[in-house]
Amino acid sequence: MNREELIAQIKAKESMLCVGLDTDMDKLPEGVEHSMKGMVEFNRNIIEATNKYAVAYKINTAFYEQYGSEGWQCMEETLNLIPKDCFTIADAKRGDIGNTSSMYARAFFKRLNFDSITVAPYMGEDSLSPFFAFEDKWVICLGLTSNAGSKDFQVLESEGQKIYQHVMHKVSQWGNPGNLMFVTGATKASDLNQLRESFPEHFFLVPGVGAQGGTVHDVCVAAMSDFGGLLINASRSILYASSGADYIDKAEAEAKSLQMQCAEEMSK
Amino acid sequence: MNREELIAQIKAKESMLCVGLDTDMDKLPEGVEHSMKGMVEFNRNIIEATNKYAVAYKINTAFYEQYGSEGWQCMEETLNLIPKDCFTIADAKRGDIGNTSSMYARAFFKRLNFDSITVAPYMGEDSLSPFFAFEDKWVICLGLTSNAGSKDFQVLESEGQKIYQHVMHKVSQWGNPGNLMFVTGATKASDLNQLRESFPEHFFLVPGVGAQGGTVHDVCVAAMSDFGGLLINASRSILYASSGADYIDKAEAEAKSLQMQCAEEMSK
Repeated sequence: MNREELIAQIKAKESMLCVGLDTDMDKLPEGVEHSMKGMVEFNRNIIEATNKYAVAYKINTAFYEQYGSEGWQCMEETLNLIPKDCFTIADAKRGDIGNTSSMYARAFFKRLNFDSITVAPYMGEDSLSPFFAFEDKWVICLGLTSNAGSKDFQVLESEGQKIYQHVMHKVSQWGNPGNLMFVTGATKASDLNQLRESFPEHFFLVPGVGAQGGTVHDVCVAAMSDFGGLLINASRSILYASSGADYIDKAEAEAKSLQMQCAEEMSK
Repeated sequence: MNREELIAQIKAKESMLCVGLDTDMDKLPEGVEHSMKGMVEFNRNIIEATNKYAVAYKINTAFYEQYGSEGWQCMEETLNLIPKDCFTIADAKRGDIGNTSSMYARAFFKRLNFDSITVAPYMGEDSLSPFFAFEDKWVICLGLTSNAGSKDFQVLESEGQKIYQHVMHKVSQWGNPGNLMFVTGATKASDLNQLRESFPEHFFLVPGVGAQGGTVHDVCVAAMSDFGGLLINASRSILYASSGADYIDKAEAEAKSLQMQCAEEMSK
């Protein structure tokens, strides 16, 4: 999916909601079989209940890899259930030397046909450039993350700039706003706002809304732009809105609520 | 495998050789079927031909993930072919927020039963700590890598130290020499030597020997210690020592040559 198509989806659905399919077998609601089959069934129901309200789905590879090759099978089946008008993200945080990153790009862009993949920048340009070589595919690079550990290295200062700022400025020279987004944590509205000023044209993938504490309003005030410019991720607050048999309705209601919050911000 | 067992293997085999199973279907020698079955057969033959000389095997997950769930199946089968007296490394470069890293740890330490996994440090302490929670399992953290892109962020200076030095010092407080190694590129002998002085007790995983240009001698002069202290990786120079039907013999000869170079350095 290219930039124009993504922006058109955001406008049509009045939504910047990304549903994170961090599906945890131990948290499946009552009545859903605790198995790979149950995970696929659960994901199907969540996708069907939320895709009117969501413009993107993010699959966290770790949740599937813990079940080995069967988990990868489950991930492949889940990806195939996502409607083609939704943007898809492999939340995989990959990154390695050039020829190895080429293999990861092939894995997620060709074999699995995701629209995008999250990547870790530590190994520099040749670790990311293979991902940029695919047309209409996107790199979503870690910038400033929302977890406690973001304080350890990302905010170290060098030559008057923090490391995450070095990362984002350099990586933005390797890609462009049509194939590069950044992961920017939602828990720091002032940082988000400053990043929007530095990167007016890039999409930001913002985790940390919902169960992790941030709000759609705060994120939009800080970093929404005229083209939307945000993919606002919610995982647990939707997937586990209820542990009972009504989980589908509750997930739908939560997705709808987040979409309406987006629509309200977009109408201002 | 714990530290004492690893050191005992190094002394018994007079070797610090790690064979990198970066198996590329397009490079399989003549006579080997270009399929998952062929990849497993090739890996079996390489492992059987080299395990007298190697103390460790490193499986690069990207090479398997490009074939999706079938590739993961191939990776699982390959791992099961490695003799129990060899140290196993999932070269996966994972790292995410805490609860996601826990899933990765489960994937590679429980489901697949690797001895160790390579991790990327960008997201800080909570992204690595779940990996340290497993007894007799190892974290191999990216320090200074051997690729061109290592110049982009790893060598930025902050507070008088380079970023990779910050990373290694901080991460060494989260683990210990019994559960933490570092990835340190072999192409920079002077850097390797300085890192050995800073971290006398830690194992270093050193890629970049063989096809990438470094030599066993240079690496050992720079960073060998009385307990060995190195896992020296060679991939392409062993796997693709010959593209003909004699590939097994040629791989064995290359592994033997590298083991003998280790033995010579260890006897000094």
